[in-house]
Amino acid sequence: MKVTFTDGREITVAEGESLYEAFKRHEVYITASCGGKGTCGKCRIRIVDGDCSIRSHGKLSQEERDSGMVLACQSFAEGDLVVDIPVESRLTVGDKIAVSRSKDLLDLLRSYSAAISPLVTRTTIELPPPTIDDNISDLERLKRGLDAAGVELRYPRDFVSRMVGDLRRFNWNVTLGYQEDSAEALFIEAAETEGGRYGIAVDIGTTTVVLYLVDLSDGHVVDVASTYNSQMRYGDDVITRIVHATEGGGLADLRKAVVTDINDLIAPLLKRHGLETAHIESVVISGNTTMAHLFWGFNPAYIREEPYIPAANSFPVWKASETGIRLGKNTPVYTVPCVASYVGGDIVSGVIATKMHRNPEISLFMDIGTNGEIVIGNNEWMMTVACSAGPCFEGSGIKHGMRATEGAIESIRIDPDTLETEIEVIGESKPLGICGSGMIDALSEMFLRGILDQRGKFVRETQSPRVREGEDGMEFVVHHGEKGDIVLTQVDIENIMRAKAAVYAGVSLLLKEVGFTLDMIDRVYIAGGFGNYLNVERAILIGMLPDLPKDRFHFMGNTSIAGAYLCLLSKEMRKEAEDAASRMTYIELSVKGGFMDEFMSALFIPHTDIEQFPTVKAMLSGE
Amino acid sequence: MKVTFTDGREITVAEGESLYEAFKRHEVYITASCGGKGTCGKCRIRIVDGDCSIRSHGKLSQEERDSGMVLACQSFAEGDLVVDIPVESRLTVGDKIAVSRSKDLLDLLRSYSAAISPLVTRTTIELPPPTIDDNISDLERLKRGLDAAGVELRYPRDFVSRMVGDLRRFNWNVTLGYQEDSAEALFIEAAETEGGRYGIAVDIGTTTVVLYLVDLSDGHVVDVASTYNSQMRYGDDVITRIVHATEGGGLADLRKAVVTDINDLIAPLLKRHGLETAHIESVVISGNTTMAHLFWGFNPAYIREEPYIPAANSFPVWKASETGIRLGKNTPVYTVPCVASYVGGDIVSGVIATKMHRNPEISLFMDIGTNGEIVIGNNEWMMTVACSAGPCFEGSGIKHGMRATEGAIESIRIDPDTLETEIEVIGESKPLGICGSGMIDALSEMFLRGILDQRGKFVRETQSPRVREGEDGMEFVVHHGEKGDIVLTQVDIENIMRAKAAVYAGVSLLLKEVGFTLDMIDRVYIAGGFGNYLNVERAILIGMLPDLPKDRFHFMGNTSIAGAYLCLLSKEMRKEAEDAASRMTYIELSVKGGFMDEFMSALFIPHTDIEQFPTVKAMLSGE
Repeated sequence: MKVTFTDGREITVAEGESLYEAFKRHEVYITASCGGKGTCGKCRIRIVDGDCSIRSHGKLSQEERDSGMVLACQSFAEGDLVVDIPVESRLTVGDKIAVSRSKDLLDLLRSYSAAISPLVTRTTIELPPPTIDDNISDLERLKRGLDAAGVELRYPRDFVSRMVGDLRRFNWNVTLGYQEDSAEALFIEAAETEGGRYGIAVDIGTTTVVLYLVDLSDGHVVDVASTYNSQMRYGDDVITRIVHATEGGGLADLRKAVVTDINDLIAPLLKRHGLETAHIESVVISGNTTMAHLFWGFNPAYIREEPYIPAANSFPVWKASETGIRLGKNTPVYTVPCVASYVGGDIVSGVIATKMHRNPEISLFMDIGTNGEIVIGNNEWMMTVACSAGPCFEGSGIKHGMRATEGAIESIRIDPDTLETEIEVIGESKPLGICGSGMIDALSEMFLRGILDQRGKFVRETQSPRVREGEDGMEFVVHHGEKGDIVLTQVDIENIMRAKAAVYAGVSLLLKEVGFTLDMIDRVYIAGGFGNYLNVERAILIGMLPDLPKDRFHFMGNTSIAGAYLCLLSKEMRKEAEDAASRMTYIELSVKGGFMDEFMSALFIPHTDIEQFPTVKAMLSGE
Repeated sequence: MKVTFTDGREITVAEGESLYEAFKRHEVYITASCGGKGTCGKCRIRIVDGDCSIRSHGKLSQEERDSGMVLACQSFAEGDLVVDIPVESRLTVGDKIAVSRSKDLLDLLRSYSAAISPLVTRTTIELPPPTIDDNISDLERLKRGLDAAGVELRYPRDFVSRMVGDLRRFNWNVTLGYQEDSAEALFIEAAETEGGRYGIAVDIGTTTVVLYLVDLSDGHVVDVASTYNSQMRYGDDVITRIVHATEGGGLADLRKAVVTDINDLIAPLLKRHGLETAHIESVVISGNTTMAHLFWGFNPAYIREEPYIPAANSFPVWKASETGIRLGKNTPVYTVPCVASYVGGDIVSGVIATKMHRNPEISLFMDIGTNGEIVIGNNEWMMTVACSAGPCFEGSGIKHGMRATEGAIESIRIDPDTLETEIEVIGESKPLGICGSGMIDALSEMFLRGILDQRGKFVRETQSPRVREGEDGMEFVVHHGEKGDIVLTQVDIENIMRAKAAVYAGVSLLLKEVGFTLDMIDRVYIAGGFGNYLNVERAILIGMLPDLPKDRFHFMGNTSIAGAYLCLLSKEMRKEAEDAASRMTYIELSVKGGFMDEFMSALFIPHTDIEQFPTVKAMLSGE
């Protein structure tokens, strides 16, 4: 059977195969937080023509059903179809997910006084050409020369194979490239070879993949590229992907998805700058523990099962040929080390990018995404937790939730008198849904305007047509749209409450663990794409961020790629990352006594203990 | 165009392609010492039907030409052909090239008091299963356990990938297999795993490939297999093959040829003993320096050019997957170390198989083949040379020469009165040619009977129909055959004289170099397949072997495979081989002053200085 899309593309669909499956098979990707299980309700498509058998309508409203909307994972073609994929169901790449900050990064590297020392080390040696009286083999001659330079290596077969010609071509005056950690000889080049050495730093995020092309001679960021992580098609969060990798036998799929993303970013980047794969000398990847496992093809099953054990936290330097990345076979690939199953290399990157591990002041580092990772500490100690905020800030589990891309409502004001809303939309386009920062804004405004009570429950007495009984109970109409209203339901609010409570409970528990009070925190670093749009005052008001003076908050952007960049350029920075990782004490919240209490206390606006939020208390009592 | 063989097979031949090339392309192998250059005259075939254009008849007699004989490398089809390949042109495998001596080898190993310690080392560790309080990653847990056992390794990606499942499947009570030299983890198995561990020792000879399947638990040789080295189709000796590898761009061909031979030997051997490739845990190869280079795919060009430099003499332990041998991807492959371009691992194997490097008595080790390698020394010092005897003892360069296989005349007696001959033929079959031992016999008998003078020239006055003027000058009819006479010509005799003179000159020069006289030599070890058929008295009489009492000569058979066997079983033996190789001082004869004088002096029967051959002198004066 044939499916024709409204943009003209055609694919086939087999009997008994859901439309979602058929789309995936043809690489037509749509959002599906749950990985196609019929629970997230994201894979909405419109049947324009033809017949489908529908297993379930999920949470689709009657109005939506009447308009031909179905869930792709619950729909099975019964003949040829014409299908429209609404923009909000499409997986597209936003413009704002990567920020190039070449100068900032260079300044950061310089602030460490770290020498540029990439993954490939070079030693130049002039060897005496062989004679009858000095007739040792080529390999022995090379070793003898390197011994004198204090370098002892292993020599792979293919290196020796190329060595015979290389030594003579370059007239015994050569530069040897080698990988210091694996103590492996990589290549020989002419002694006078200069320049043309590039590296690639990769941030493998759960949602996005960001790649920096870096000139290894001076640390200059040549170009940046990014895309959504195509693993998205198998689910929004790490847990769904682990399930797909293990129960679904999809480890190879997940691995291939992200490697293909990286390859698809590299190829045009090289082309644009007139580079060959041979110019790319090394790669550094930074990502959470699950991302690192999926990239290297390691079974992530035990990350998810108590006692939550990864295959590895520290990864040896392996080679591009082991990954499927289309670069030189022997190109070394370094992985920023992880701390534990839910605190990965992206957070270690964050620590070295903020330098919190070097400063005597107490810093709090927060990366708020699907998984919220929190680090507290200074140059003497660091503690870290991960709290599952859930994917709601990424748009999942929220009726009209979406990621912070074009069409997302990122800011909301509610008129205190009329309760009418004023919204700002990313890309200034037609609003399609609400992203994380919009949710936080909405929650705070709804609370301030008396629409929500302290427990986050709708105040039924509110007099406004925007507060109404919807299909899923009470809801607030954020925006009246042509194609239907954008609302936040009681269920949505509860999800957002749980997410913000989890983040704050993590902070509280960490503070308790170290016996600190909030005012001892000198700096709060907010990392991750979410941070770019976050309104700190609003986030404090709802009790997600601790109530500290605004000037203590620092938005760091993508610190994962920043860490990868640092590690790509300098051996000292790799050492720094490894030391930082080993110094971070991980607390497993899911088994830690006290977390549930902290979480329950935080399920209020701003908190059951208002004393923890003095500025909010003052504002509320002042009104 | 089509070529039909008299056995019914059919192949195609292209225009402008020699029949020799077409045969090779279809894997129909025939002898061709020169590699198809039209100089050796070995690739004789008979055109039964059809037309050929002939570039050259080489040394074919008019009679041979009349019978349809052509040189395959000089013949080009002009239409369909019917072709017969005479048995003497066929590459077939003899029965006698490998001798299994399981008990002798075991005794040898035991005489070293060497522990059985193959290339794969095993350590059993019981790891505490992970808990919330001890939640380090699997890899860190394994490393921690191994640290306690004093083992520090590198962990390949595929090892880590399998480790996650292995540790749990075997309930954290595991045996780790690793390769000590490369410090690389190989596999994890259940702690209680026993037996089923085999290794393969391979002797890669220029002419033959011999393979022993060895039970690594007790050192028992389970089975033996052998074949001709298919590189033969590219030429008989190492020089021709180096030329093919370099000028002909045929390195890959040569490599593939010998690897295919090894694979073709392994597969039936495993099948016969009900083994899987996974049972083969390690491989050791032993061969001359060129063979080792071709096996590993290293450009051998500089072995042949002054100052004669190999890519490597010592080879790191690499993996089966690097070689093309169809065993486990990570199966370690050890190469018995070489000494120099023309003294390889086969000779080092010979040294450790004879234990000459351990004994205070002075030993002389001789491996007489196409290349004659000689070692002299004891437990304190060793000197070695290689002298190019030329391929005549293997049958090449001799009009009716052939290898010591079925049909070869291996022994000749000439009646002192009638000058009639009495011959012995390998396999007691119809004589097809003369092998090395037959040549030595013939030379000595012809000299004793006055047919040859001391310079190896025919005595023209000899009254016998067997001594006659042939196409190539004077010749001696060794055998009157139905299909033509088997003769030794003046040119043949000169070749044999040069070969024996080269061997003896090597010995003389070595002795001079160390300031020794012959009587100081306590033992002479004769190695190589040639040794099996060698008549020592005759070889002394012609001045090839030194004039020492017969009981000092020891025939060792294939010492190359014996060395490979020892290295396969024991780390101490690998150390022994490496130490022996480093202790062997190589003298490059081709540039050494004095060799030419020694060589010229040895171009006599037995020698210009008869005092060096007292028993021959006595015999001659007694007659």
